[in-house]
Amino acid sequence: MSKQDLINSILSGDHRGLAKSISMIEDDDPDIIDILSKIYHKTGRAFVIGITGAPGTGKSTLINKLISTFRKQDKKIGVIAVDPTSPLTGGALLGDRLRMSDHYLDPDVYIRSMASRNKLGGLSKATRRSVSILDASGLDIIIVESVGTGQSEVDILKITDAVVVVLMPELGDDIQIIKAGIMEIGDIFVVNKSDLPGSDKMTSKLIHGIANLKKDGWTPQIIQTQSLTGVGIDKLIDSINFRQNFLKNSKNSLQIQRQKIKNQITETIMSDIQELFQNQIFDHLEMNAFVDQVMNKEIDPELAAKRLLLDFKKRIV
Amino acid sequence: MSKQDLINSILSGDHRGLAKSISMIEDDDPDIIDILSKIYHKTGRAFVIGITGAPGTGKSTLINKLISTFRKQDKKIGVIAVDPTSPLTGGALLGDRLRMSDHYLDPDVYIRSMASRNKLGGLSKATRRSVSILDASGLDIIIVESVGTGQSEVDILKITDAVVVVLMPELGDDIQIIKAGIMEIGDIFVVNKSDLPGSDKMTSKLIHGIANLKKDGWTPQIIQTQSLTGVGIDKLIDSINFRQNFLKNSKNSLQIQRQKIKNQITETIMSDIQELFQNQIFDHLEMNAFVDQVMNKEIDPELAAKRLLLDFKKRIV
Repeated sequence: MSKQDLINSILSGDHRGLAKSISMIEDDDPDIIDILSKIYHKTGRAFVIGITGAPGTGKSTLINKLISTFRKQDKKIGVIAVDPTSPLTGGALLGDRLRMSDHYLDPDVYIRSMASRNKLGGLSKATRRSVSILDASGLDIIIVESVGTGQSEVDILKITDAVVVVLMPELGDDIQIIKAGIMEIGDIFVVNKSDLPGSDKMTSKLIHGIANLKKDGWTPQIIQTQSLTGVGIDKLIDSINFRQNFLKNSKNSLQIQRQKIKNQITETIMSDIQELFQNQIFDHLEMNAFVDQVMNKEIDPELAAKRLLLDFKKRIV
Repeated sequence: MSKQDLINSILSGDHRGLAKSISMIEDDDPDIIDILSKIYHKTGRAFVIGITGAPGTGKSTLINKLISTFRKQDKKIGVIAVDPTSPLTGGALLGDRLRMSDHYLDPDVYIRSMASRNKLGGLSKATRRSVSILDASGLDIIIVESVGTGQSEVDILKITDAVVVVLMPELGDDIQIIKAGIMEIGDIFVVNKSDLPGSDKMTSKLIHGIANLKKDGWTPQIIQTQSLTGVGIDKLIDSINFRQNFLKNSKNSLQIQRQKIKNQITETIMSDIQELFQNQIFDHLEMNAFVDQVMNKEIDPELAAKRLLLDFKKRIV
């Protein structure tokens, strides 16, 4: 397939084009840069929902139900499932994928897992790029699912239009780890499995916790759901629609969009800088001399870092 | 307390000096740089053990038992508990701290929590610095405890002498998230709660998984424990001692130590670069012009990033 054929295939929403280009993103194929820049003018139509929550909170079942509801409204949907886990234990998340299998044969639902290539910042960059591809392909809704444990995932969520944080009532010693920074960026909080004891306690804990988290005029919402039976899903959809309308009509709308682009540019630069420098610094000519000095306790690693950085800055331009 | 008094207090192992200097590290007090460089020549004596595992694996109870055993050998111990969770749900980990309270009154055990200040790379830098302080104070063993979910925690573990990964048998849907990269740096794998069904299955899964993970001549060890009753703790201690002897006597010993210092210098530089650039880029004079171009779909964010980085590089030297 020529580059132009691939671009046409993406823009027509052909799943083969989507699969091919996202694989190129994962492989860091140099041709993808050009493709991304040529499809960019078609982006900006899709509403991007980030859904995060620890394993076991019922996040995937919830997404499954959301897809069904959106499909009844004849919306085209893409799901990118971000998987930061080790290949050794990664089988666990495969189970999650299976819970979405209701929709695997639906031509208007495109589901794709995105694995970490263990590169610094690689996962969030790849996800951002894949969202652009799906957006340009004409999908109405793009769901980015993550377990929300790493900084790169917080970065990913920052580029979505609505961040949904899925929690469940706390059961004794069963602890839900929420990475610092996730609560702060949540737009909608879901207390799933609300039939379990502790649901109301969790909800009021949340209300207390997010009371002061109003952002750009938006007040975070809290919704109780039971993803298995579907209880509360309509309210969640309402809340997502409410968020979409808010972003469209808010007087801050332009400001929010500009902020998102600014975040995206900054993060791209930061990950470029990391990629660019990490190896250069590690293999820097003077590195061994500094390691010697630290080994001999003549200087400490921080002073070595400071001096090496000075030396390095002189050479990069 | 004058700077010199504080340095003396640290070097004499006084808990007040340790507490004061680690607080300075957390607050990013500019004076700490000088203090760190002046105590550095006293570091390198302690054996640093990184212990990581998801909440619920019994990690803290295990550490409690390890401390008791090391104390019987009259070793002085420091524990740094790294806490990357959100303040909103952070109460969960406080429970863990309580499980170590057996040793809070022992003057030869120093336990300290280290919270994320939400700064990029801040947590790993602060932990590295705190380990130096404890090391210089004359402790024999320093345990760095982490839940192992973020990249910064992988970075932290990289500077320890022995990485212990705590797992437990899998129970149905109860999924253990292991961040990509953690398995790869594990030196000792503990299957805790080995009385539970699935323990042997988990162990053989591990044996299969780590079969090819030999690093610098070290073959990762797998140990079954029951932290509540103490079963297997002796084997774990043996394994830790074995690792310590290996590092002392291996022909790669010097190489491993150099590599650790090289990692430390590289990571310090990378986090300095991030701190230095993140705000500068975000507030860069040309940023708004580029955001405009992206808003108008004239260029995509990646091209904007590329051009802004070029412009930025011209100005930093």
